[in-house]
Amino acid sequence: MRICYLGPQGTFSEKALLIYTKDIKKCDIEEVSSIPDIISRLSSNACDEAIVPIENSIEGSVNVTLDMLINDAEDLMIKGEIIIPISHCLIACDFIDLSNIRYIISHPQALAQCRQFIKENIPQARLITAESTAKAVLEAKYKGTAAAIGNERSAEIYGMKILTRDIQDVKENYTRFIVLSHKDSEITGNDKTSLVFSVSNTPGSLYKVLGVFADENINMTKIESRPSRRKFGEYVFWVDIEGHRCDNHIVTVLNKLNGKTDFLKILGSYPKFK
Amino acid sequence: MRICYLGPQGTFSEKALLIYTKDIKKCDIEEVSSIPDIISRLSSNACDEAIVPIENSIEGSVNVTLDMLINDAEDLMIKGEIIIPISHCLIACDFIDLSNIRYIISHPQALAQCRQFIKENIPQARLITAESTAKAVLEAKYKGTAAAIGNERSAEIYGMKILTRDIQDVKENYTRFIVLSHKDSEITGNDKTSLVFSVSNTPGSLYKVLGVFADENINMTKIESRPSRRKFGEYVFWVDIEGHRCDNHIVTVLNKLNGKTDFLKILGSYPKFK
Repeated sequence: MRICYLGPQGTFSEKALLIYTKDIKKCDIEEVSSIPDIISRLSSNACDEAIVPIENSIEGSVNVTLDMLINDAEDLMIKGEIIIPISHCLIACDFIDLSNIRYIISHPQALAQCRQFIKENIPQARLITAESTAKAVLEAKYKGTAAAIGNERSAEIYGMKILTRDIQDVKENYTRFIVLSHKDSEITGNDKTSLVFSVSNTPGSLYKVLGVFADENINMTKIESRPSRRKFGEYVFWVDIEGHRCDNHIVTVLNKLNGKTDFLKILGSYPKFK
Repeated sequence: MRICYLGPQGTFSEKALLIYTKDIKKCDIEEVSSIPDIISRLSSNACDEAIVPIENSIEGSVNVTLDMLINDAEDLMIKGEIIIPISHCLIACDFIDLSNIRYIISHPQALAQCRQFIKENIPQARLITAESTAKAVLEAKYKGTAAAIGNERSAEIYGMKILTRDIQDVKENYTRFIVLSHKDSEITGNDKTSLVFSVSNTPGSLYKVLGVFADENINMTKIESRPSRRKFGEYVFWVDIEGHRCDNHIVTVLNKLNGKTDFLKILGSYPKFK
């Protein structure tokens, strides 16, 4: 089996990958440099599975992942999830003073998760986006006035110094990753199902859809709206529910939803992360 | 009256400001360089009103605006909205070939709205964030290998060349701005109200809250979830509804909501943008 993830080594995605693959005997790992590239490699069968970030407890959804799964990636399904704690470090090639930092390089999500820290401690710095936190660390290696935001392991791997630890704006910080493939997972008895739908723009239409879940006493673990991209003020909803799409009561729910939504896409069922 | 906006001259916020102030006889305009600074200037009474972007039809909500209004900015209210069409241009100091562009500078929202264009046409470029599109244009002025993403007016103001027009990934592109102040607006008969709330994490709790709106036949024009920042999987909901908070049926709704939500904050009522 071939799995790709948002590399290089030292990203938070790699941490999620190591957790996911610890019980898989034989797998080839491939580093890919952006989320759209990961999804397109999986779509073209260049790999069998892929791990991408989807949601962070401070900054919210990773829009590019949601939007690609909603609008593109017709044939992909979610087969797993991994949730890991996120601790961000400020990393540089040497122990420089914060007042001498001119650039801070990181993934846009990491920059957003540390917005307050940056404003208070390094207000003079320009923010430069990188495709991953590890790439940011690698880049800061050759710039004396730059610092990167990344994890401890990336500092070790690339021989860099940690200036400050735990710099995210809220100490309790988690990111949820999903495992994508061409098939989702079998029933385990402790599953979740992800789906997206749109409803007509009339009073009560979202309420009616949520009523389908409430009638069956189904818990939603996530609800997120994204612009439909067709008309301003029209949304597509991403919902995660407890249960597997092959469970009897979920089958009932999905059938009812078909009649109450303009568009419905089942993204897959998978075991809850423990 | 003193109004501040996300400057410098040539931002999309300035366009919204010019529309908003065209019938106001006397006002002083102040450019501020970031959304958090705008909100803190308004909170400290350094100005009377402020205009900030809140939502784009391609990329969705401006998280920093939502989060500051949800978590900080206790005393601020929304008193108006302005919706403008957004057309992004690729701007440089000279007519350089796209293959020679090494950096693309813009506001993170603008970079995200042109993601596909950049990937297809300037894949080699590094993305650098700026606090506003106009600042990005101003910065690209002194870098021969950089281009900025901004509007036509910013190219004119700063004497720059437009390399390509309409580069956003979806041609129909709108951004909604809100006017913040210490008071919201009087009833006009064609109003909207913004509110945020959280519900307990049990099956049907969001459904019950939306039922309050549905029972009164109230249309939601926006619903958006943001992480609560307290616990992973807990959300705060931002909802815009049709009607003014002093309308009789909205008063009924708000009273009912009080009993069904863990937290409720009325962000203000204001005339719908025409």
